[in-house]
Order: sequence, then structure tokens, then C-alpha cells
Amino acid sequence: MTRDSVPTPALLVDLDAFESNVRAMAGWVTVRGKGWRPHGKTHKCPAIAQRLVDAGASGACTAKLGEAEVFAAHGLRGLLVTTAVVGADKAARAAALAAMAPDTIVVADDLGQVAVLDRAAGEAGVRLRVAVDLYFGRTGVPPGEPACAVARAIDTAPHLAFAGLQAYDATASHTRGAEARRARTTTTMAAAVDTRRRLDADGIACPMVSAGSTGSYRYDADLDGLTELQPGSFIFMDSDYLSIGGDDGGDAYTDFQPALSVVTTVVSVHGDEAIVDGGYKAFATDRPFAPAPIGRPDLAYAWAGDEHGRIDMRRADRRLAVGDRLEFRAPHCDPTVNLYDAIHALRGDTVDAVWAVAARGKSQ
Amino acid sequence: MTRDSVPTPALLVDLDAFESNVRAMAGWVTVRGKGWRPHGKTHKCPAIAQRLVDAGASGACTAKLGEAEVFAAHGLRGLLVTTAVVGADKAARAAALAAMAPDTIVVADDLGQVAVLDRAAGEAGVRLRVAVDLYFGRTGVPPGEPACAVARAIDTAPHLAFAGLQAYDATASHTRGAEARRARTTTTMAAAVDTRRRLDADGIACPMVSAGSTGSYRYDADLDGLTELQPGSFIFMDSDYLSIGGDDGGDAYTDFQPALSVVTTVVSVHGDEAIVDGGYKAFATDRPFAPAPIGRPDLAYAWAGDEHGRIDMRRADRRLAVGDRLEFRAPHCDPTVNLYDAIHALRGDTVDAVWAVAARGKSQ
Repeated sequence: MTRDSVPTPALLVDLDAFESNVRAMAGWVTVRGKGWRPHGKTHKCPAIAQRLVDAGASGACTAKLGEAEVFAAHGLRGLLVTTAVVGADKAARAAALAAMAPDTIVVADDLGQVAVLDRAAGEAGVRLRVAVDLYFGRTGVPPGEPACAVARAIDTAPHLAFAGLQAYDATASHTRGAEARRARTTTTMAAAVDTRRRLDADGIACPMVSAGSTGSYRYDADLDGLTELQPGSFIFMDSDYLSIGGDDGGDAYTDFQPALSVVTTVVSVHGDEAIVDGGYKAFATDRPFAPAPIGRPDLAYAWAGDEHGRIDMRRADRRLAVGDRLEFRAPHCDPTVNLYDAIHALRGDTVDAVWAVAARGKSQ
Repeated sequence: MTRDSVPTPALLVDLDAFESNVRAMAGWVTVRGKGWRPHGKTHKCPAIAQRLVDAGASGACTAKLGEAEVFAAHGLRGLLVTTAVVGADKAARAAALAAMAPDTIVVADDLGQVAVLDRAAGEAGVRLRVAVDLYFGRTGVPPGEPACAVARAIDTAPHLAFAGLQAYDATASHTRGAEARRARTTTTMAAAVDTRRRLDADGIACPMVSAGSTGSYRYDADLDGLTELQPGSFIFMDSDYLSIGGDDGGDAYTDFQPALSVVTTVVSVHGDEAIVDGGYKAFATDRPFAPAPIGRPDLAYAWAGDEHGRIDMRRADRRLAVGDRLEFRAPHCDPTVNLYDAIHALRGDTVDAVWAVAARGKSQ
């Protein structure tokens, strides 16, 4: 199979760019003495998680328990589930997962949920590793004394082991402008490191402080007290991350190469308009930008429903015909990948591998 | 399993409302002498397609060949693939599908593609049924002489059989205001019926004119010359269709009952804000409305990333706590369903069936 014969709409990854991104992240964090446990919510793909481990990652983060279950079933270990596991049923699943993959870590931000997790772990006969999720504007418990109280509850629970702190700051990741991003993450991460110091003073060892993202890794890797980073999007990049601003002060963020694209086919042409076979079911629509045609700045995409996009050819250097293919950069990579069953990995124009997005839709 | 134990985020359908919607559509079209082949792109679910056939539908439409392949493998027949099958590889798949399910119809709007389909059908040793897709602003060939030319090419192709006209008008479906919608569909459908008359005059029998939608079915069912309707969303409804305006002149569209919801769990609470476990991967984001909390007009949802939503509790009658569940009406049903592997069908609060969304992601 080649780039021109993959049935469309389809998700493509350029292996050279992907591998370059993996090397760049691995090199940056390793030189600075940090671990990295890249976020699997971006790719939901055990084959990619394994490649990252082969490149030195200590495991994989997942957003949800359902993703971690899929990754574990594919043999991955070192899993960190980054959103709280809430309710007795999910706690029982977390305990069952820990029986299979004992180094799995889940997070909690609530004393009631700590008790629920402890009960489930006791019933399953496991010691479940639980980290405290810190609040920087979305989920978690505020750093400082509130977080220490949850950590102590975990530490003293008979069937739980305190695994450390999760200090993900979603706002820092997407803050536009490198200096503003550095300032934001340096401030919020100081509160995480301070929480770790308080726990040390209490005699509670904190084996992990996990933070960082594709947007903030560069600054987080220099912060004492963080132990590991959990970036996700760097492997693929998307229109959003490519425009958050670089360390040179410009708008472009060039630390990583765009590696992900969606390929479509022109299915109908009328006057100066071509219709491609990719719409709301081919691209995530949560960002304010439309999909960007790759290598064709003379064309513009507009949404045209679930299955279609409209291509404006009024300024086209070359017109499109029925059957032509057109590739796009996705506005936002994670929820776009979540629309597909497979990622076609290309070396040049040859499909080198078809990776199953095995944890696609496993949001539970 | 009950409404309160389905792992979240999850897709629920209320069977009483769903069945009422099916009865309403079946009754309306049957009384007016029309056929109906409801659109499977809404549900992508063979179990639902079968229920619709059991209620009198002649088969199922699908948007894509990949969906039709899944439906056919589940034993469904009477399939109409409503977007053009473009390229030699897809033409070969269409021919293979016709070998398995000979009454399958695909559409074309381009003379070149008619030749490609004919070649593929010849190679597969089948006679492939092809309808002409008419243009009302997106895909298709303009009604009148351009459409007749494509119909004649199909009719004279050795391995194809002319199956009729597809006259879907996406703009009519979502036009706000009942009178404007009626005016739009009556005008565009007149062009479809005129095309049929021209073909009749040419001696080309036109066994099918398929049109209509959840928004326009009421008017289309009265139009002479249309043979069948292809509505989809009426089984579920969504915030978009519920607000396109009713026949009474008001904003609400009450022909069908809302039957679909997404259930989430509160995973974190801070002050007047609760975070639920449903974000961009739990709801389609292509409409300008946020998910609407069901039965809780005192609460408001705001997007908070891939996995989360933010609930504003400043005007809450009752506050939410970690572990509480909250259900939402989806802004747009079709691409929301496409995010899930299963639909939980509820009778009251009991899960009566779990239907696999077997054609989810089959956009190819």
C-alpha cells in the first residue's frame, strides 16, 4: 500500500518526522536527568506506546482506565492513569488492572475516593499505587496542605501505596507565547515542588512528580523536584501546537515536526468548488481553525457536514478533479486520532505499517 | 445494568422515545404512500437498522461504502450508499458488495466515475445498481439535462443498472423555520421530479427518487414523484434538530422526541465548579451549542478539553458532588454516536440491550 492507495479518509503518520520527534524529546529530557512517560491519550495505539518505551520512556500515561486496560493487555507496563478513577465499579477495575500490571498508578483528588480505592484494592488482594492529582484550574486538589492531606490518607490506607504527585497544568501547555508559557509553568510547578517538600518534611516519600506537556516540557525539564514528564502531542503535532509560539519569540513552535495528516479524496466538483470526503467524522472540530491543506496554500477548506469538506479553488494554482487526493494537517491531533481505527505509518510514500488505534473510544 | 451503573461517559437511548419516533415516521410516510429507507449514518448500528426494517423500512441508507459493508455482513439488505463511490479500489469494493447483496445501490455524479464503476462491475461479474446523485449545493450533478446525461451513461453501461435519483438537499434539512424549510424543499424537489419526467420522456425508467430528512420529511412525503425518504436523526434527535422550528411557527421542533443522551460522572469539584468526565471525546463539537444538562436548567456545561467538561454551579438548586451522574442532550447526534463503541438501550432505568455501533469509524 502507498500514500496514494490508502482508502480515504485516512490518518497518516510520517515515520521520519515521528522518529525525529521521539529522538528530540528523549534527548532533551534524558540530558536533564528527567524520566518521561509520554501520554498515550494522543495516539491510543499500543504499537506507538511500545516504540516510545523502546526509545527510553518508562511506560505510558493514559487519560482513562479503559485505555490503560488496553495498553496492559498489549503487554505495556509502567502505566499512569492521569484522570481520577471515580466510583466503586471503576475502583474494582483499577484493582484488577493492578493485579495484572502491579506498577500501574492511578490518581485521586478526594478523600472519599481514596477510601473507595482502598476498599477495592483490599477486596482484590492488591496494593494499589495512587498518586495525588494537583489542581491547576481543572481537576485535582490544591497544592500545599490540601494535597498533603490526601497524600497522608493514601499513605496510611492499608491497601494503597502513595505513588507521588501528578502536576499537569493544562493551561500552561497551550499558553501562547514562549515567555508567558515559561512563566506560567514555572509558577504552578513551584507549588507542586513545595507540596513535595512538605511531604518530605512529614516523612512521606514522594517517588514521582509527573508534569509537563508538549508546550511546557522545555521549561519543566529544568525544574528541580519534578521527576518525569508526560508530554503527548509532540509525536504528531497539530495546527494548534504548531502556533503556540517558539523560544525565538515568534508565533511558530518548531521544536517538533508535523508528522500527522489526514488524506482525503475529491468526490465532486462544481465550478470553483471541490468536495472532499472528510468532514466532522474525519477531523476533530473543537479548535477554531479548519483543516489546513498541506503544500497547497492556494486552497482553503470549509466544513461541509459529517462526511464532506468544501475546497475553495478560486485562487487555485492547479484545479482539483474528481479522484484527486488532498492531505490536511489536523487542527487538534488527540480527538482526531480518536475518530480512526488505524494509523498508516509511511516511510516516504510507502505504507510501512498499519497501527491499530486499539484504545480508540475507550473513554470509560 | 442500570442507568446508574453504565460506565461513563456513555451513550444512552431511551427505548420508549426511540420507538415512538420510529412509529411516527413509519406512520407518516406509509399513509402518504412513500417508502422509507432511513439513514444509517446516524446510528451506524446494525441492530437499529434491523429494528427499522422490522418497522417497515425497505432497507438502510449508509453514507459510506464501509458502513454498507458492515451492514451487509450483519444480514441487512436494501442498502443505498448515499455518497459517491470514487476511485477504482472503492469501485471494486462496491462490486464485491453487490455480489453479496445484489439490491445494493451506489450513487455517482460524474461520467468518469460511471465508467470506473462499469469496469469494476464487469470484472466482478455483477450488474451494479447505480443512482444519480443530484446537486443541491454540495455533491451531485445538477438536476435536468446534466443529471439525465449521467443517467443515460449508467443506463447504457453494460454492467450497470440505472437505479434512480438521489435528491438529498442538506440545506433543506437544517433550514430554520418550518415555512422556510417547506419552501426550500418544495423548490429543490421540483427540480428532482422534473429530472425524473425528462428521463421518462427519454424512455429511461426511474424506479427510485430518494429524498428527505428529519427536517423536511413532512413536506417531502406530500410531493408526487418522490418514491422514498431517507431521514436519519429522527430516531434520536439532538439539540440542533430540536430547535429548527416546528409546523406551529415556533422555535421548537416537536415532531420527534429526544431519545439520545450522554451520561457522565462528576470527577472533581472546586468551589462552584464541578468537572464531569465528558469532553471533546464524548460529544461532537461541530455545533455552536454546548451539551445541555437534562432536567437541570440550573446548570451549564462548558468544554474543558478532551476528557472533561466544566459545570457551572453558581445558580445550582442542588450542588453536585464527586461521583454524581449528569446526563446531557448531544448538540449533534450523528458525529457523537461515531465516538462510541456501544449504545445502551434503556427501558426506564434498566439497560435492555447494548447495541454495537459496528460501523463506527467506517468512513472509508
